[in-house]
Amino acid sequence: MSSTFTGKNVSSAKGPDPKTSLETERAAQKFNPQAMQYFLEGSKEKAELINELIQQMERDPVLFTDGSVYDMSKEQLREATAAKINRVSRYLETDPIHIFSTRLSLIGVFDPAVFTRIGVNLGLFLSCVRGNGTSSQMLYWSLSKNTAYVRGIYGCFGMTELAHGSFVQGIETTATFDKDNDEFIINTPHVGATKWWIGGAAHSATHCSVYARLKIDGKDYGVKTFVVPLRDANHDLMPGVSVGDIGAKMGRDGIDNGWIQFSSVRIPRFFMLQKYCKVSRDGEVTMPPMEQLSYSALLGGRVTMVLDSYRMLARVATIALRYAIGRRQFRGDNVDPNDPNALETQLLDYPLHQKRLIPYLAAAYVISAGALKIEKTIEDTMEELDEAVDEEDKERIDNAITLMKALYVDSGSLKPTCTWLAAQAIDECRQACGGHGYSAYNGFGKAYNDWVVQCTWEGDNNVLCMNVAKPVIRNVIAIEDEGKVIKGGSEFLNNLKDYTGSGANKVILENTNDLSDINKVIKALEVAIIRFASATAKTVRTQKFDYVGADLVTLSKLNSHLFLLKAFVDRVNTHDDDSLKPYLWDLGKVYAATIVLDRFANIFLAFNVASSEAMIDLSRDVIPKLCKQVRPNVVGLTDSFQMPDMFINAAIGRYDGDIYENYYDLVKKLNPPRNDKAPYSAALQAMLNRPSLDVRERFEKTDETAEILSK
Amino acid sequence: MSSTFTGKNVSSAKGPDPKTSLETERAAQKFNPQAMQYFLEGSKEKAELINELIQQMERDPVLFTDGSVYDMSKEQLREATAAKINRVSRYLETDPIHIFSTRLSLIGVFDPAVFTRIGVNLGLFLSCVRGNGTSSQMLYWSLSKNTAYVRGIYGCFGMTELAHGSFVQGIETTATFDKDNDEFIINTPHVGATKWWIGGAAHSATHCSVYARLKIDGKDYGVKTFVVPLRDANHDLMPGVSVGDIGAKMGRDGIDNGWIQFSSVRIPRFFMLQKYCKVSRDGEVTMPPMEQLSYSALLGGRVTMVLDSYRMLARVATIALRYAIGRRQFRGDNVDPNDPNALETQLLDYPLHQKRLIPYLAAAYVISAGALKIEKTIEDTMEELDEAVDEEDKERIDNAITLMKALYVDSGSLKPTCTWLAAQAIDECRQACGGHGYSAYNGFGKAYNDWVVQCTWEGDNNVLCMNVAKPVIRNVIAIEDEGKVIKGGSEFLNNLKDYTGSGANKVILENTNDLSDINKVIKALEVAIIRFASATAKTVRTQKFDYVGADLVTLSKLNSHLFLLKAFVDRVNTHDDDSLKPYLWDLGKVYAATIVLDRFANIFLAFNVASSEAMIDLSRDVIPKLCKQVRPNVVGLTDSFQMPDMFINAAIGRYDGDIYENYYDLVKKLNPPRNDKAPYSAALQAMLNRPSLDVRERFEKTDETAEILSK
Repeated sequence: MSSTFTGKNVSSAKGPDPKTSLETERAAQKFNPQAMQYFLEGSKEKAELINELIQQMERDPVLFTDGSVYDMSKEQLREATAAKINRVSRYLETDPIHIFSTRLSLIGVFDPAVFTRIGVNLGLFLSCVRGNGTSSQMLYWSLSKNTAYVRGIYGCFGMTELAHGSFVQGIETTATFDKDNDEFIINTPHVGATKWWIGGAAHSATHCSVYARLKIDGKDYGVKTFVVPLRDANHDLMPGVSVGDIGAKMGRDGIDNGWIQFSSVRIPRFFMLQKYCKVSRDGEVTMPPMEQLSYSALLGGRVTMVLDSYRMLARVATIALRYAIGRRQFRGDNVDPNDPNALETQLLDYPLHQKRLIPYLAAAYVISAGALKIEKTIEDTMEELDEAVDEEDKERIDNAITLMKALYVDSGSLKPTCTWLAAQAIDECRQACGGHGYSAYNGFGKAYNDWVVQCTWEGDNNVLCMNVAKPVIRNVIAIEDEGKVIKGGSEFLNNLKDYTGSGANKVILENTNDLSDINKVIKALEVAIIRFASATAKTVRTQKFDYVGADLVTLSKLNSHLFLLKAFVDRVNTHDDDSLKPYLWDLGKVYAATIVLDRFANIFLAFNVASSEAMIDLSRDVIPKLCKQVRPNVVGLTDSFQMPDMFINAAIGRYDGDIYENYYDLVKKLNPPRNDKAPYSAALQAMLNRPSLDVRERFEKTDETAEILSK
Repeated sequence: MSSTFTGKNVSSAKGPDPKTSLETERAAQKFNPQAMQYFLEGSKEKAELINELIQQMERDPVLFTDGSVYDMSKEQLREATAAKINRVSRYLETDPIHIFSTRLSLIGVFDPAVFTRIGVNLGLFLSCVRGNGTSSQMLYWSLSKNTAYVRGIYGCFGMTELAHGSFVQGIETTATFDKDNDEFIINTPHVGATKWWIGGAAHSATHCSVYARLKIDGKDYGVKTFVVPLRDANHDLMPGVSVGDIGAKMGRDGIDNGWIQFSSVRIPRFFMLQKYCKVSRDGEVTMPPMEQLSYSALLGGRVTMVLDSYRMLARVATIALRYAIGRRQFRGDNVDPNDPNALETQLLDYPLHQKRLIPYLAAAYVISAGALKIEKTIEDTMEELDEAVDEEDKERIDNAITLMKALYVDSGSLKPTCTWLAAQAIDECRQACGGHGYSAYNGFGKAYNDWVVQCTWEGDNNVLCMNVAKPVIRNVIAIEDEGKVIKGGSEFLNNLKDYTGSGANKVILENTNDLSDINKVIKALEVAIIRFASATAKTVRTQKFDYVGADLVTLSKLNSHLFLLKAFVDRVNTHDDDSLKPYLWDLGKVYAATIVLDRFANIFLAFNVASSEAMIDLSRDVIPKLCKQVRPNVVGLTDSFQMPDMFINAAIGRYDGDIYENYYDLVKKLNPPRNDKAPYSAALQAMLNRPSLDVRERFEKTDETAEILSK
């Protein structure tokens, strides 16, 4: 055996060299990843801001995160999260608003618990105050009391109850007006009405924005919002307030989610948030123009989750793709079988592996464009609404409410589709890394556990899908029955008559070439939505909406992909750097072929939107070819996300591609091999070295004993 | 506000009453769940044995498990797991073999880390010795040394390396024969060849069955198996052996997975396992009749995972379905809108919710039948092989190898399909429980994290699928080219010519009624496999196998569903209790319609196996109706799994259905509300009560200072 000293370790043979694979491919990239980042983040300025903020946080002694986070217990995570929030609060004191929100969004990538735990205060609590309170109330609670800087007050968001989540109108906590004292009495009538899952309630929050049924003189006015103090300035619980820790969760254990019970807790009348709904000194009630306005607190979160989905997809795709370039396995069909010294095949050179991963890379790009679009929409809409309300301009308010409804539909459709897609991506990317994907140190486990709650909170994905698809069905029925003309994003529905009835058999995607023409896929998607919605509408006419729940979910997904594909096409068309476009169109085509056509193939087929021949070609030829086209650019396309190793936080996914050495070093660092015996080793050894059963049974069952005892 | 004292708590209003919902439905069940358990477990005797074993373990002070496990850190889990193994070992000393394996399989449900950690010794290590060693070697290592009772020796299984997993032939650890000393020298040549993921290696194992390249006089004889001692009787590491803990994982943290490096470790020649391959004193090698025989160690595990999948599906479906009966949400279409006092709708009365959950209930039933079948096959096959080898009967060995190959295909196809299905079930059932599904105390998080490694280990699902689908394609090519006649489970392929070429357009499922006829679905599945395989074969003829990787995975899934559906139909047909059959056929139909037809709709459509009209009806009518038919029997069908609350280990999924009280009580017990301040509360308070920025900046940026410093 000949030995070689590699500088780091003694090796008696040459080991695998994943680093060179990645470096070689990186050197061969044909576009500038920096320029690509400008596309992804919306502009050069935004990309530069992001890089500055990352540098700040990467160097920050408290905020810096590495593999050791994967070894932390719930208690350690909680404490570390609080320390990080303390640190972040110092940045927030001087951050202008656009930096502030970008900073938080980035923290969400490498430390989701910090993001959420601070987000319940800055996002949910303050959004609730902003959405439901007057501007004076907003100014008071947000700025005068320094809540926006996590100083003085720490707010939490008290909507969900143990027995009520999605059905907010059914909430059972009561706010009874006590006219004599000009106070509301907040009460939890029974265990089922306990506020539950309230982020920050267990140990952090001083105040809660409580959703409770307004009751005056026995009359129920429905669910309204109130600011209720939980803890005083000494952080002691207020009288009548009971709070508990809801304990361990699937993920995000850094957040102190809690439960709250109010036992006849009194607050002054002016703690009610009264932008839309007011109670006068005499108990007279002014009702809001639109009931749902009070839930606008959740809108921002839904929009943020689209951006989060982009970053999560980018992160996990980067890890799995870098690994797939470095890792070699079997000698595939691309290896000369007569060459005994040939290296094994890189994972990413297998068409199956390409099909598993490249669609998620493409999805990151497509969703980045969708996120930019919906972010812009919410900013404009909220601004318009605030101004309209301040000016008390009835027409303008109505107008803003219409915009708001469209935003509900778009965000309510994007949030489920994007968060589900990211969840699948984490899972598929983990599996694509084989056993190493299951190591906590490669990030997927925590990513998944932290992530999947996004499919449930702030609007359960299935419930949201159904809610946003119903208006589509109603529109279809109105078009069919009354010839209604639709405006806005869904105006393609006006073509309904061309593609149903006698037009029901018109095939849009006839042949293979059509499948990689994004505009044709968009057209096909519109026709699929029309036909599918029309068929669903037919059922709804006799069976009502509950019966078609599954179809509504499908419809919402189709709508969402239509929004995303259109946003992507617009973004590419209007982008100023033409050198990037060929790569971008390739990704768009992969997305259209895999995430849209392949996944919804049954609909495209059953409703004659695509021909059988084309769809058989799709999986046999089109997808492998499109993926193969992207394959050489994968290193550049992942580098373009410009995620530093701190964000990646996966030993096998680092920039340098030295997967085995990085992983081995981290494992050794966090689990020093010197500890070769477990703390409980004595018990283990006692088990292994225990005497035989006969001895331990005091020879009571031996043949000799049998003879004695049987006599 | 009127108050009522409910006995437990003071309530000022009536809370939700999920318990009564479940009790009422349970009372209305029309079949005997005990009798149904006999169907599920194979026989009355088996079911009774299971219930006895569960009672034993439920009462055992060490083995008993409850919600507190969800709060345990990795270190606590490791120690508790070792203590449980110690306890289990005492049962094993007297258990006959069939009790022994049933006991372990049950432990796998409520404590997967115990199952796996003990399984690496009893399953993998000993299976490797059994599969590769002579009967004397097996007797010595297993019984004489008491390994089978976890006494004296604790074995681990050293196959995977840091840079080699699925491609076992590429393993780089070497076993070089030193003729002078009649020894093998075991060596890890470089970091990439470090044995990795080895369960039990970090702290428990005393011996390892090592897969290493046999090298004699510079010649490489491929990968063989050797028993290598790691630790002596004092549990100190042998010289030349380095071992480390691979640390935190996504799940199963109770297992001490480790890495091992051998630095010129010497073992006597007779430590080589030499059932098939022998090295003589002079270094002459007898090679085995079939290279893959040495991997038979993994076969048992793959078969076990089918049974595991059944139990996991049963468990999570039970939790989510009980919750869906107790939980009410919105007033659905089944509620009279004019009744203001109407209760909200039970989740399970929504067709969407039925469609999300009932297929997994059905899958548990169908897979139980598949598990019974494949278990019987492996027992028979292994016995036949052992006998044949002992008798050195060449013809019988060849025959047994043929059976073995069929078993490779069936188990290699079932393992991926069933483990993926169970993973999806855990995820969907969690989401179907909304936010409460995300609480650690409701079991899904740990279930998922512990489970999903099943999709990767002991044969990566994608790799297995490809391996077992290739012979199907080769058979199709042989039928097409040479008119080969296939025997065994795939003989339906012989009908190829009837359904391809001029028969390619023959539709099997023409109308709605066909979709709920299980035998027609089975026929359709066969035709789909034929046409899909034939199309794939066409591509393979020009593009080789790698190119159709994704199609091979699909083909393997279709094959697996065919096996399962057939096994289920056989099992129902031959079962002796006719009273159960209507319920069982309903479940079979749900499985066929949802897990098979709906999920592979694109194939049934694209290859003309089903008509568009039928497939549109499938989602619009057939699935909702089939689910609705099962709906009234859900309580009985879940109770039939006879899973005690210890197995369920989910506060919202217990037998009594008192979801809110159970959950609230558990949360309070594990997180006493008396602890209303966090241990790190001082830091939190210091943050909130910090002086203003001006003060902390020593007024250095105020206007007054500006004036001074700008002068």
